[in-house]
Amino acid sequence: MAPQYAPSLRSRLAPLLLFLQIGFIVIYYFYVEIENNVNGITFRNLYSVFQDLNVMVFLGFGFFSTFLVRYGFSGSGFNLLVAVMATQWALILNGIESWYYRGKIWIDMKSLVIAEMCTSLVLISIGAVQGKTNPVHLVLMALLEVFGFVLNGWLLQTLLKVRPLNSIMLLHIFAAFFGLVLTRVLHRSETEYEKEKLNRKTGLFSMLGTVFLWMFWPSFNSILLLEHHSPERRLRAVCSTYLALAVSAVASFALSVLSSHKGKVNPTHFLSCLFAGGVAVGVPMPVIHHPWEAMTIGLTAAVVSTIGFRYFKNHMLFAFDCHDTCSILSTHGLPGLLGWLAHLLLQIKHCDDHTTATRFAVFHISALFITLSTSLIMGILTGLVLKWDIWRPPQDKKCFDDQAYWKFEHLAVCK
Amino acid sequence: MAPQYAPSLRSRLAPLLLFLQIGFIVIYYFYVEIENNVNGITFRNLYSVFQDLNVMVFLGFGFFSTFLVRYGFSGSGFNLLVAVMATQWALILNGIESWYYRGKIWIDMKSLVIAEMCTSLVLISIGAVQGKTNPVHLVLMALLEVFGFVLNGWLLQTLLKVRPLNSIMLLHIFAAFFGLVLTRVLHRSETEYEKEKLNRKTGLFSMLGTVFLWMFWPSFNSILLLEHHSPERRLRAVCSTYLALAVSAVASFALSVLSSHKGKVNPTHFLSCLFAGGVAVGVPMPVIHHPWEAMTIGLTAAVVSTIGFRYFKNHMLFAFDCHDTCSILSTHGLPGLLGWLAHLLLQIKHCDDHTTATRFAVFHISALFITLSTSLIMGILTGLVLKWDIWRPPQDKKCFDDQAYWKFEHLAVCK
Amino acid sequence: MAPQYAPSLRSRLAPLLLFLQIGFIVIYYFYVEIENNVNGITFRNLYSVFQDLNVMVFLGFGFFSTFLVRYGFSGSGFNLLVAVMATQWALILNGIESWYYRGKIWIDMKSLVIAEMCTSLVLISIGAVQGKTNPVHLVLMALLEVFGFVLNGWLLQTLLKVRPLNSIMLLHIFAAFFGLVLTRVLHRSETEYEKEKLNRKTGLFSMLGTVFLWMFWPSFNSILLLEHHSPERRLRAVCSTYLALAVSAVASFALSVLSSHKGKVNPTHFLSCLFAGGVAVGVPMPVIHHPWEAMTIGLTAAVVSTIGFRYFKNHMLFAFDCHDTCSILSTHGLPGLLGWLAHLLLQIKHCDDHTTATRFAVFHISALFITLSTSLIMGILTGLVLKWDIWRPPQDKKCFDDQAYWKFEHLAVCK
Repeated sequence: MAPQYAPSLRSRLAPLLLFLQIGFIVIYYFYVEIENNVNGITFRNLYSVFQDLNVMVFLGFGFFSTFLVRYGFSGSGFNLLVAVMATQWALILNGIESWYYRGKIWIDMKSLVIAEMCTSLVLISIGAVQGKTNPVHLVLMALLEVFGFVLNGWLLQTLLKVRPLNSIMLLHIFAAFFGLVLTRVLHRSETEYEKEKLNRKTGLFSMLGTVFLWMFWPSFNSILLLEHHSPERRLRAVCSTYLALAVSAVASFALSVLSSHKGKVNPTHFLSCLFAGGVAVGVPMPVIHHPWEAMTIGLTAAVVSTIGFRYFKNHMLFAFDCHDTCSILSTHGLPGLLGWLAHLLLQIKHCDDHTTATRFAVFHISALFITLSTSLIMGILTGLVLKWDIWRPPQDKKCFDDQAYWKFEHLAVCK
Repeated sequence: MAPQYAPSLRSRLAPLLLFLQIGFIVIYYFYVEIENNVNGITFRNLYSVFQDLNVMVFLGFGFFSTFLVRYGFSGSGFNLLVAVMATQWALILNGIESWYYRGKIWIDMKSLVIAEMCTSLVLISIGAVQGKTNPVHLVLMALLEVFGFVLNGWLLQTLLKVRPLNSIMLLHIFAAFFGLVLTRVLHRSETEYEKEKLNRKTGLFSMLGTVFLWMFWPSFNSILLLEHHSPERRLRAVCSTYLALAVSAVASFALSVLSSHKGKVNPTHFLSCLFAGGVAVGVPMPVIHHPWEAMTIGLTAAVVSTIGFRYFKNHMLFAFDCHDTCSILSTHGLPGLLGWLAHLLLQIKHCDDHTTATRFAVFHISALFITLSTSLIMGILTGLVLKWDIWRPPQDKKCFDDQAYWKFEHLAVCK
Repeated sequence: MAPQYAPSLRSRLAPLLLFLQIGFIVIYYFYVEIENNVNGITFRNLYSVFQDLNVMVFLGFGFFSTFLVRYGFSGSGFNLLVAVMATQWALILNGIESWYYRGKIWIDMKSLVIAEMCTSLVLISIGAVQGKTNPVHLVLMALLEVFGFVLNGWLLQTLLKVRPLNSIMLLHIFAAFFGLVLTRVLHRSETEYEKEKLNRKTGLFSMLGTVFLWMFWPSFNSILLLEHHSPERRLRAVCSTYLALAVSAVASFALSVLSSHKGKVNPTHFLSCLFAGGVAVGVPMPVIHHPWEAMTIGLTAAVVSTIGFRYFKNHMLFAFDCHDTCSILSTHGLPGLLGWLAHLLLQIKHCDDHTTATRFAVFHISALFITLSTSLIMGILTGLVLKWDIWRPPQDKKCFDDQAYWKFEHLAVCK
């Protein structure tokens, strides 16, 4: 049983944030410069992708978690806070190679875009611990998780010669399992889940965030192909992602109806499973050549995601004490694994001889194994760090509640 | 009098959706491929337009109808569902010509953009029956309406040699009259309109959706000129649309005040008439050369739209049993007709001799006549199909209510 | 003491709006044409920037002020109304030079973008008088303020040879002091501030607007560098703005916690100070070469903004009868001044000899002096015009309330 403290943002979070932020400024002072040699076309391409990604990271993920009835401000506000910390940190970590060879970390639009991809990793994992953690936890977790992900990319590159951009494709798997093991380690049996519900009115904010995520997912997936500069590949990424998203939206609606007692749609389920197709199709993106492949992956992802939401979510809580607020297992974990499997199967299908097929299989299984190991190990380590009482976890009664961290005025004219 | 059934999404909608979706995947498996030969500049141009359109279709139209006090989730959720079904279907129907000549339906960004234009057609028509239909109705209606619109484009092309993109300009007229005749056919005298009201809080979501529609309307209108690849024409489209929208926003505010008893603004009226100018100016886009033309059209559109909202809406209900939830007659129908008239007058004005003028007049009147006929015939046919009891219309008491289709948890901590 | 009238939109606003709008159409008829000679690349660049700016102007600023508990519709609706009037007016005023030399005002994407920048000026100033004015006031104020700003640009150009785009950088300073002196002149001691509070639910709309402003701020700042067409400079603007925004988000969160009694975050404070860094870094944009410079400016801006919000806001009210609804002094005024100071210091730092440094100092101090003078004089003049009883100010009891101007239906089914 974890001890109970009053929230103490003042004594913990504020100094930590200022310390880290000034630390970042010092690091940027010594090591970071803005690239001087810029290609105009690349800049314009990447800037529009960057803005789409910005909308997903700050708005999409931020408002996705406003479905919790009393957690709107924390959901969107902490999301913003964590995202900017994580991006600054990811810019530094991703630039180590540049620093090694060129003496300075030279940042350009591509570094910003990749840093925001790493940030979205953190925002996915936060979904699992949303409402049960304070912002100190979230910021520390962001730093450790981005470190873990960069380490994973380095391991994959060193051991398996995976190109850096390709390792980003395993982001959903890494994020989901990191978040799950973290929420398991941080589990406190007394937490009250009474406020973990969707409200009809604030629920529309969640719908809004989800629709933004859904709409800009084609940009997210096509980023992975940016280094090729080939419009054919980007078109394929956009069409595939769009179709997979479309199919998974239809299927998750239908399956939500089918799996409900009264034949009604569960809004939380619908919102969670809506973009399962986009997640799943992102992993095997380079090997998808036909629309039907993307659509089949989208359909399967919606099925897998629905099963995960309906059956695994509660089981994980009762059997393993693993409480997953935003169902990241079914939203990102299972569709990510499905995408990995689809990648493997599609590559094997395209192989002519048995040897190459085996080599691909070994390669993909090793990549998944390394990613899962790093993710789980980093998740446990992060959990142990965050379990430390010094960070003052929120009181059991104050979980999922804005009141713990935000000061609202008393409203006499409240309507 | 239509019989009353409990909503039965489970026995009707879910199987229908899954059947259609799997059907689509099968069709895509045999007939649809992604284009291989892509021009980089065209791709980038179209991709940014596509994202603007995406925001209008999924967010703008979706949140526009959240003004209904208890219909936010249905308004935005069903909108998403219908939109993705309609887009997949429009991709197939619009590709028939490509399939005929090239053996396969080759899709690229242009096909996606045109498919989403057809989708916006459906979303406009849905406005008329919003709240009084179940999702089964909406999905069937989407399929039939897109079919009707593609048929109309084909008729215009065959009979009058209208280029495909130009026939899209009549989209608002087609959609409005389709929706009106459909809601007339589906009319049930017992429907309760008690919940058909704007709520102050959820009303802001409607404001949000409308502002998005309003902001991206220049992208919508300039799409029609994309095949010319001329920046001059696109600039003209953007400036004209922007100015027409600006004028119609100002005028609809002023007219809402003038036509109200207490001299206050009616928010529903303001939101409905806000983008009348954008609708009207879209039709005669290729012949607008001066800003004042666009502004005059915008002003007239706001006047026409206001008159439609204030006087026609209730009359349509009492005199013709035709209930139009989102006032699509005044938002899209009348401004569309006005735009058609402006197109005709501007072309005649630019004519030198009497013969050409007569030819233009005959041409435009025929195009309008064909469009209206197709629209009304398809509307009646769709209405007859949807009136069939097998689709289980919502109970009279459950109209305009999310509770009929969405499962919300009981909230003890409700504030 | 100002006399109290019932709101009379009908007898004042509606005729004024229609008169102005028809006047604009007449002016556009005689003097305004759309540019014929357009460069494709410039068009595409500017169009995407224009859409970002559109989102900031209509959505960002509009929803920022929805934090007032009962003022959501007025905040976003009046914002839209004022913005479109101001843009049409700014297009005319900015085009006077073009009219002088070329006989007509030729508008293109660049004129639209600059006109919207001038509009954002008005929307900032409105923050100071939000809730205490009626739309007639706001529209008149928009016309006078845009005139003052264009006059200021002309003065700076004539007296100090400042290029037009550079004078736009002083927009935040101009807007803040104009708004402050205006709210001082319009002050009525009986105004009730009971409804000037943040509500937990509508507060999320404010969060949404602010996040949009925050996300697209890099586009806003890089517009100032558009005339150079150099991707290096735009990259520097984007990176600098992004980093400054990131730092000021972190710092304003931490400082909000530190300056609060209970160690909780004040949402109004957080939202106000969030983008102080973006404001401050916009002014010295052309002389920022290193990321740490932008980050330091962002950190300082957050500190200055927090101090302004915590201490100046109440002091301004009690000591000077100057009530600043959206704290534009701390959001735009102080960060703007800080940016001006940073500009001066950075330019002096890069100077080799003493003479040049002195010249720069004199130049910057003169520019600031001229801007402040024009701003304050125009603010006082505008205030005197608006104080005239003929415009019917809102009743003291109806301040900060949508009910004064918007007609909401009675809701029996209200939940």
